[in-house]
Amino acid sequence: MAELEALLARIRPVDESARTAALAAFDAKTKPRGSLGRLESLAAQVAAVTGIAVPPRAEAAIVVVAADHGVAAEGVSAYPQEVTAQMVANFAAGGAAINVLARQAGARLVVVDAGIAVPFEHELVRPVRIGPGTANIAVGPAMTAEQKERALEAGAALVDELGDVDVIGLGEMGIANTTSASALTAALLDVDPQLVCGRGTGLDDEGVARKVDVVRRALVVNAGIDPLTALGGFEIAFLTGVILECEKRNIAVLLDGFITGAAALVARQAADVMIASHRSSEPGHRLILEALGLEPLLDLELRLGEGSGAALALPLLTASVAILREMATFADAGVTDAGR
Amino acid sequence: MAELEALLARIRPVDESARTAALAAFDAKTKPRGSLGRLESLAAQVAAVTGIAVPPRAEAAIVVVAADHGVAAEGVSAYPQEVTAQMVANFAAGGAAINVLARQAGARLVVVDAGIAVPFEHELVRPVRIGPGTANIAVGPAMTAEQKERALEAGAALVDELGDVDVIGLGEMGIANTTSASALTAALLDVDPQLVCGRGTGLDDEGVARKVDVVRRALVVNAGIDPLTALGGFEIAFLTGVILECEKRNIAVLLDGFITGAAALVARQAADVMIASHRSSEPGHRLILEALGLEPLLDLELRLGEGSGAALALPLLTASVAILREMATFADAGVTDAGR
Repeated sequence: MAELEALLARIRPVDESARTAALAAFDAKTKPRGSLGRLESLAAQVAAVTGIAVPPRAEAAIVVVAADHGVAAEGVSAYPQEVTAQMVANFAAGGAAINVLARQAGARLVVVDAGIAVPFEHELVRPVRIGPGTANIAVGPAMTAEQKERALEAGAALVDELGDVDVIGLGEMGIANTTSASALTAALLDVDPQLVCGRGTGLDDEGVARKVDVVRRALVVNAGIDPLTALGGFEIAFLTGVILECEKRNIAVLLDGFITGAAALVARQAADVMIASHRSSEPGHRLILEALGLEPLLDLELRLGEGSGAALALPLLTASVAILREMATFADAGVTDAGR
Repeated sequence: MAELEALLARIRPVDESARTAALAAFDAKTKPRGSLGRLESLAAQVAAVTGIAVPPRAEAAIVVVAADHGVAAEGVSAYPQEVTAQMVANFAAGGAAINVLARQAGARLVVVDAGIAVPFEHELVRPVRIGPGTANIAVGPAMTAEQKERALEAGAALVDELGDVDVIGLGEMGIANTTSASALTAALLDVDPQLVCGRGTGLDDEGVARKVDVVRRALVVNAGIDPLTALGGFEIAFLTGVILECEKRNIAVLLDGFITGAAALVARQAADVMIASHRSSEPGHRLILEALGLEPLLDLELRLGEGSGAALALPLLTASVAILREMATFADAGVTDAGR
């Protein structure tokens, strides 16, 4: 916990004066007050996070973190474990949904191997291998305390390396990681696994029942152990480190779906820098968004992960900041202001 | 009605085989079946409209049509009528929200003067002046049958001129045009004006009550007259012509908010080519979307008009088509397919 506590200790509130100034700037623009709705509060949040009333740009990176999960052995996914590595290869080759969507959104894409079962070496994949997949949470802790610390540190270190970005979109890949995220969510929100577990990549009713049972066993066998260590995936711990470091460095965090939401729940002290890109089909995701007080920008029935929702919402964020920066005021344009 | 009927007669169904082929193409992509949710049905709709299973691109134009409304004399807007022309000047100067958002979305922006009270001449504004604003609908018809025909024809002619586009986003500007749209919606859906009228650009409760009363008078005084002629604005008639011509030319129509929705309601025979970009705060807009069977892509509490919602939703459409075109299949990428 030392690293996590050290990160938490550095957390400072976002800049409310920058938020207020951004909202005032919107009121001077040539449009009825508040008529851009949530776009206005979105840009104002970027202002609050970055501490700049009119952010000069919204330079974005999307970080997709892959890892394997020992709990896959319990038959909780519609896909075999080998698909994690296959999809990392697909990311490296540029053929996955997130490759297309990151290109469309003009965001830099960073792919991290936080611990897939069999290494996939490629110049476009960062090897941050905490281990060859986690242990099976149905029979014991996912990782050691030392592994968790290393994953958190590695996530923070990546943010340092990324340098001059204003927003980081989160993504993930890992067969069986909705089971890990479900267990974490049930533990952290103290809710019944039945209310959290969903179909993941395509489980049938029997599969969901098995998943609920696995999560129940994981919660019992790991009782008393720090939830992230006990139930997390390496990608979830890594993403938690990313979020906490973003908070420290005034970078907005654009969450994706359920898995990145579980990392957000672990890092919930940093909720002020988080933006919810979308509401996924996973029932646990709704619970997370409610707990974090986040209202998603999109609701398109996405359930892919990879950062796909974050990439799809990014143009809204970019547009909101562009409006703040580029749009004329009533005074500039000589337009009569009704003052409301 | 001759021109409208002629346009309607040419309407043919969208290409369902292209839609089916697009959905099948999504199923072969390296992702769980259906996991891109509404993005899949969106791209499939573009395929159905254009008649091409994998559309090679999604070249977009946004058409913003401005006009003045005689009913502004009834005090139904928070802004004075001169703001219509001022905002057209703002569009021409590049300072309005739609200028910023069209740039962000990579869409060509076309501004049309369909009849503002005092002409604003500028090389970036197309003069299609049907008249110097409509007549006051509270005391008689908005326009003559001949004016309506000219507006419809002019909208269709613009689509012809735009040439090789795959999607046209609709936008509008016109002080008091939510009153015209409210009257049209009440007439076409046969609902009480009380359920349709909203705050527009910022009316208080008293203003909304006045607007309801004006709409009631407009419906009574114009009973028996074709609704578009009696209650429409020149921009609404022009946009109706745009929609009907898009249907004929296999071009997808990205609607904006309430005003473009009223045009869509007039052109409802062409609903298959329409995509609802967002759900606006105006109560009448919800009724229109329900009547047209359209589910909006965004719900961001926008109430600006100008095509702002269409421009904000455009990247979703572009991304959906890019996914269909660029993403790898299971076979391409050597990823194991769970078949679900």
